[in-house]
Amino acid sequence: MLFAPTFYILIQMIWRQVISVGDTVVDATCGNGHDTAILAKLALGENNEGVVHGFDLQSSAIEKTSSLLDKELSTNQRKRVYLHHTCHSKLGQVIKEKNFVSVVAFNLGYLPGGEKGITTASNTTVEALMCATSLVKHGGIITLVSYIGHPGGRDEYEAVRDFATRLASDKWICSHWELLNRPLCPRLLVLLKK
Amino acid sequence: MLFAPTFYILIQMIWRQVISVGDTVVDATCGNGHDTAILAKLALGENNEGVVHGFDLQSSAIEKTSSLLDKELSTNQRKRVYLHHTCHSKLGQVIKEKNFVSVVAFNLGYLPGGEKGITTASNTTVEALMCATSLVKHGGIITLVSYIGHPGGRDEYEAVRDFATRLASDKWICSHWELLNRPLCPRLLVLLKK
Repeated sequence: MLFAPTFYILIQMIWRQVISVGDTVVDATCGNGHDTAILAKLALGENNEGVVHGFDLQSSAIEKTSSLLDKELSTNQRKRVYLHHTCHSKLGQVIKEKNFVSVVAFNLGYLPGGEKGITTASNTTVEALMCATSLVKHGGIITLVSYIGHPGGRDEYEAVRDFATRLASDKWICSHWELLNRPLCPRLLVLLKK
Repeated sequence: MLFAPTFYILIQMIWRQVISVGDTVVDATCGNGHDTAILAKLALGENNEGVVHGFDLQSSAIEKTSSLLDKELSTNQRKRVYLHHTCHSKLGQVIKEKNFVSVVAFNLGYLPGGEKGITTASNTTVEALMCATSLVKHGGIITLVSYIGHPGGRDEYEAVRDFATRLASDKWICSHWELLNRPLCPRLLVLLKK
């Protein structure tokens, strides 16, 4: 249901509208790997169609994602998920082709169940976003779930919101979704490249 | 497409999720009648199922809506649309049954093609919203499209946003949707009664 108090139904509905089997998609923040698995199922066919790139700075996140994918994907699909143990600000060093990716997904904040002191940070997130804007194809999207409850969270949210607000309106449609009567609820940004 | 630069695709998608044939729905701002016609097609069956109430303060809006409905609906459907030439703040005087309506739709601002000096106003809109919260059934929604470009528009937007922000989060889920890089674009509020 569109208004469920979780963002995940809404965001998955959006991904489904945009991703076709055979697409290249990026999970910029693997975390526990749930989003990576969902994105992979949408983009990867059984006949070597589609590629997924996943990024995380924390080795525990890469390990958790890898073992989740081993369970959730077929052997053939699993081969086409490339996990990169590096900061998402390095997106552009790993993926060279411009205007090619259907979705770049960001789930900001800290690793659920991990060390809360280790979070994504405004400067590297904005750097990664900058890369993502050139990687995404026309008709493709960048999705960001931004949490504001943890230290630095509100600054990071303001930085990504500011970034989206400045994108040229003839090239990008930048939607922002929030729950008004739950002020600490995460906010969803969807940046569509025209 | 979910991110089309018009709200109308998004809002119609939301109405479709919530309205079933046989429901009672309300268009609180008939205007030219386009929304009334769409709502009527979703709620009204051919066998006397469903009721639509439409409100507008301007007689020209009621006339335009009436002739559009004559064209768009079957004779049997048309009989079950009740148009009220009165301010939407009188909603509660016309519809008595509480927790019964699936959708109350507001499209704020002035009548397209009409007199731009005649607009909805913060105080009566908030009064109408208050009525709407008691009419809407559990699982039903209030949708508001709020324009901020005309005189008084921003005040009215702030008033409805403030109203939604104050609704108890255990009873209501109040979503807000906007385009960040088009600051004068209308904003969409969807208030779901749990």
